[in-house]
Amino acid sequence: MRFLSDNAAPVHPNVLAALAKADEHDLPYDGDRWSAALDERFSELFGRECAALWIATGTAANCLALGTMVQPHGAVVCHEEAHIEMDEGGAPGFYLHGAKLILAKGDGALLTPHDIDAVIGGIRDDVHQVQPHAISITQASEHGRVCTPAMLSELGEYGKQRGLGLHMDGARFANAVAHLDCAPAEAVGPCDTLAFGFIKNGGMSAEAVVLFDPERAAEVRFRRKRAGHLQCKGRYQAAQILAMLDDDLWLTNARHSNAAAAEIASACGERLIHAVEANELFVRLGARERESLRQQGFEFYDWGEDSARFVTAWDTREEDAASLAKAIAAL
Amino acid sequence: MRFLSDNAAPVHPNVLAALAKADEHDLPYDGDRWSAALDERFSELFGRECAALWIATGTAANCLALGTMVQPHGAVVCHEEAHIEMDEGGAPGFYLHGAKLILAKGDGALLTPHDIDAVIGGIRDDVHQVQPHAISITQASEHGRVCTPAMLSELGEYGKQRGLGLHMDGARFANAVAHLDCAPAEAVGPCDTLAFGFIKNGGMSAEAVVLFDPERAAEVRFRRKRAGHLQCKGRYQAAQILAMLDDDLWLTNARHSNAAAAEIASACGERLIHAVEANELFVRLGARERESLRQQGFEFYDWGEDSARFVTAWDTREEDAASLAKAIAAL
Amino acid sequence: MRFLSDNAAPVHPNVLAALAKADEHDLPYDGDRWSAALDERFSELFGRECAALWIATGTAANCLALGTMVQPHGAVVCHEEAHIEMDEGGAPGFYLHGAKLILAKGDGALLTPHDIDAVIGGIRDDVHQVQPHAISITQASEHGRVCTPAMLSELGEYGKQRGLGLHMDGARFANAVAHLDCAPAEAVGPCDTLAFGFIKNGGMSAEAVVLFDPERAAEVRFRRKRAGHLQCKGRYQAAQILAMLDDDLWLTNARHSNAAAAEIASACGERLIHAVEANELFVRLGARERESLRQQGFEFYDWGEDSARFVTAWDTREEDAASLAKAIAAL
Amino acid sequence: MRFLSDNAAPVHPNVLAALAKADEHDLPYDGDRWSAALDERFSELFGRECAALWIATGTAANCLALGTMVQPHGAVVCHEEAHIEMDEGGAPGFYLHGAKLILAKGDGALLTPHDIDAVIGGIRDDVHQVQPHAISITQASEHGRVCTPAMLSELGEYGKQRGLGLHMDGARFANAVAHLDCAPAEAVGPCDTLAFGFIKNGGMSAEAVVLFDPERAAEVRFRRKRAGHLQCKGRYQAAQILAMLDDDLWLTNARHSNAAAAEIASACGERLIHAVEANELFVRLGARERESLRQQGFEFYDWGEDSARFVTAWDTREEDAASLAKAIAAL
Repeated sequence: MRFLSDNAAPVHPNVLAALAKADEHDLPYDGDRWSAALDERFSELFGRECAALWIATGTAANCLALGTMVQPHGAVVCHEEAHIEMDEGGAPGFYLHGAKLILAKGDGALLTPHDIDAVIGGIRDDVHQVQPHAISITQASEHGRVCTPAMLSELGEYGKQRGLGLHMDGARFANAVAHLDCAPAEAVGPCDTLAFGFIKNGGMSAEAVVLFDPERAAEVRFRRKRAGHLQCKGRYQAAQILAMLDDDLWLTNARHSNAAAAEIASACGERLIHAVEANELFVRLGARERESLRQQGFEFYDWGEDSARFVTAWDTREEDAASLAKAIAAL
Repeated sequence: MRFLSDNAAPVHPNVLAALAKADEHDLPYDGDRWSAALDERFSELFGRECAALWIATGTAANCLALGTMVQPHGAVVCHEEAHIEMDEGGAPGFYLHGAKLILAKGDGALLTPHDIDAVIGGIRDDVHQVQPHAISITQASEHGRVCTPAMLSELGEYGKQRGLGLHMDGARFANAVAHLDCAPAEAVGPCDTLAFGFIKNGGMSAEAVVLFDPERAAEVRFRRKRAGHLQCKGRYQAAQILAMLDDDLWLTNARHSNAAAAEIASACGERLIHAVEANELFVRLGARERESLRQQGFEFYDWGEDSARFVTAWDTREEDAASLAKAIAAL
Repeated sequence: MRFLSDNAAPVHPNVLAALAKADEHDLPYDGDRWSAALDERFSELFGRECAALWIATGTAANCLALGTMVQPHGAVVCHEEAHIEMDEGGAPGFYLHGAKLILAKGDGALLTPHDIDAVIGGIRDDVHQVQPHAISITQASEHGRVCTPAMLSELGEYGKQRGLGLHMDGARFANAVAHLDCAPAEAVGPCDTLAFGFIKNGGMSAEAVVLFDPERAAEVRFRRKRAGHLQCKGRYQAAQILAMLDDDLWLTNARHSNAAAAEIASACGERLIHAVEANELFVRLGARERESLRQQGFEFYDWGEDSARFVTAWDTREEDAASLAKAIAAL
Repeated sequence: MRFLSDNAAPVHPNVLAALAKADEHDLPYDGDRWSAALDERFSELFGRECAALWIATGTAANCLALGTMVQPHGAVVCHEEAHIEMDEGGAPGFYLHGAKLILAKGDGALLTPHDIDAVIGGIRDDVHQVQPHAISITQASEHGRVCTPAMLSELGEYGKQRGLGLHMDGARFANAVAHLDCAPAEAVGPCDTLAFGFIKNGGMSAEAVVLFDPERAAEVRFRRKRAGHLQCKGRYQAAQILAMLDDDLWLTNARHSNAAAAEIASACGERLIHAVEANELFVRLGARERESLRQQGFEFYDWGEDSARFVTAWDTREEDAASLAKAIAAL
């Protein structure tokens, strides 16, 4: 009964099947027909013209997207627990050639204009201080919370006033859309770029960088190559993404994992540290309680000293979620 | 009848099968049992302790390897037609933080100590001039030529004298080993690092960085992550490589493509621009001759104004190679 | 009556005289006899072998020094108000190729092992998190406080245990030595590198990077050149520094500005935000009080809403310091 | 009798006098009145609005200027013997974050559109190959040759067609203007940026970056700070430049050194390797001839095996030039 990480889950059968189906001769790199289809498919999905490129990791997706809006002498404002700050091994520093992350606090690992202004409002407009060039938010957030269209709209206005680009780390964008039950366009709001995650949600090794200003695509393609991310046989990358988009598999998978998380959440009551809006649960559990759950066969990570993190996935069995809910309720 | 590129070839069935077999729950990133097996498997293959990491492209493999030996203020000496200079979109400049490539000439896109000394012998040991820190060679070379153990040994001695690291871009290392019919260790000689290619030879999206000084592995792991190349579900990367190593599939595939190239070469006679030692042929063919071959259904790239490049692959059908040989002979 | 900044002060006459004296033909860059003298002069000063290079700014001095201990994939721990974080326009990100600053809190802008451990103690030793490679402290600190030999010794031990380099930003090192009234070696303690400031203390355009491991000098020389900091006529750089060292002019100047600051501090009582140990005073003063002082002819910067910063310099007139003390006392 | 390097010459008395005159309290960095005057002074000089910043070295000046036109994934085309390639310790790689230099051949170290096209004409417009973003030329060239307004105009048109920025390394711009006897604007032609050299021509430690699109100045100011080149007491930088501009001292000095070079050249006849148009002479001289000159007290560098380089400076004595001319004639 596995709740360690959605990265630990296997690959959805449709994705593996798509690899087999793409197993033909075609032009190398992104010259193939699968890669060529991405722009149109994402433009349809978001209801406006955009460009989309496959890329092997969310880290690279975030960095390539941020590179369209942040100069080396600038900075990105993000939450102090944002994945780009905590878990990407300094990749933004590498890809942005030394640009800085400015860390803001915000409830639920979400950011409001007020949160952001608290850290950049005092920056003097002179060369001694690194100027912010962009904001990066995570959808769903590192605390499993979702940014609503209204919140996005406020961020968009703030960013516009301050001349800041707006990027969305959408490693769990599918879970956010499933939660909001809205059009994808509403869940991304006024963002300029989106790192659209598929891997945690049933994919194998392909995410998408979505650029809502398609004119930036040429530059991003050069930078993807320069980062050693232009795969020789790109058709196997594109085919994964197309398989996830077909028949809205991405949404189906996310709804499934969200439902499993909600089921578990319903048993947690006061134990919940954050509202459960996606597929992650942060639960207050003492050492003995965690021990007890582990003895019952549940796998999960400790989260600090008195808590645990549970993550559901596209393949979480309903009975496992129900068992976990029951076990927590019984503690 | 396809001779465009070995990157255009599909994936070997064993590799696809390995993906299906790896399709289980396991720890994310490179915490899985497949990834953990790589060091030992490559140590066996080369008969000495080494570390090996999967990576999605040869470009990234070369750059991570070179990063172990070249400081940002240094330089890599390579052939003027080396892949790292001509076809990697400036990736070495990115990964090495602005280090320089110093371009040497050399027959067959191979380099001898003499070739290298011609470009670095005059560099004064002062801060005004960028100092070479490493040599990069390609095995098999960009002209389809193979560096023999004797040549490698000379390069190793020269590098030692000058204090230079030695890297091998082995995008077609398998073809070189197949040609030399020697132990892999002999085909890599005194190199410090090897980018061991699998993708052109039947793989899908995994190459290996092999470090003959395993102590450098920790740093390379940090840098792989920092470059956004640590995939979430690394088991699908490692599994591809292991499938290629099983029963020496890598060698079987390379022997097959080499044999197909040799068959074609036997019909080319004086038309050959370079001796054919791997799976690439550079053939003098006038515009009308190329047109004639294309009308007969052969696909290939023009190479300059009066030549063509043909590349065989693991899946080249023997009858296609025979047909091409016959067609060229008949021109 | 100027208390804006020690950078606003002019150049000490001895330094200008030294420029005139160095105004001869000599070898360019750092091939001249003045530049050649630096290693020995600083080795004498610190009582152990070290290497010293001139450099035009403290920012560049800090960055070149940090470059000897921090890899691009690593981090520097510093105070959240450290000059390298707040006032160097992101130079560490540039020079360290994207390495990160990890910000610690600490009284008086000083850092203890405890302060540092609070921010790096929880960093897992895995590739997802940027690892600290060095600590940077400021002597005297950004709050005008001085790090004692005992505190330095504790930091040294902590750094050793954790395998971290130790750098000192000594923009006001002279003021710290004057305050401690100790040997320069004691004021730098176990630091590996020191950016020794002269410009705020009467110099014109030359600071020194001091490397207590002289073997690192060769690399730093390459990096200084690569950063465009190897001046064509280096003798005018070295001559400034030598003039400051002659007859301990650097100490005389610092004692003078410290004394002026102490004089003013003696009138501030409870108004002082930080103990005054060097030449900076941070003083609680309401808007009307500041207005009153300005009307009396005192120049200084506001420091937040209810405070002011006063900086004394090598040329602060005793009567000006006395007047300011009197004026504050009279508020 | 010194002909080693114009960097070996001392500083013109007016420049030293200007330092003494600037030795007052003023705002730090570039907030002073001298720095504030630069834009206007250079705009007058070039007869059109431009921005100008002081900077300590030509290397940094070149790099900051190139940074306005070259993205990290792009390249600069320059002569294979250009200073930025041969003598700047890899600074362009550092400042341009890994962008590449593409090396062209050209008579007299000058470049024509034809020379440039020979190296970039074959670059495919795809992501595998680094694309040129700018051209850098040197005025006067590394062979002491001068680019005429007509040649500049051709380069400008070529650059425009290809969408390339145009930078001029003007380390000896003064000598070029003196030779052309034209307005400064004609000697810079359609260049977007100019590194205007003063140091070799009698300055101490200040060059100017001139931006003919003043809108780029804000970015360059951030990048100058980030490179640790914003000096604390910038008035001493600006004052040097203003002293050189006053009464056209820069032109007077350059005319003097050009005349000295012409005098020597008149004695060299067939020995001259390059036409002498500025203040450098490259002269065929056998080992014994060089020995003989040295015994007569002439200092100069060997230039390859059978030649020597002589450089005149603002302070070259007429009698020394005449002596050298006579000595060469007598060989």
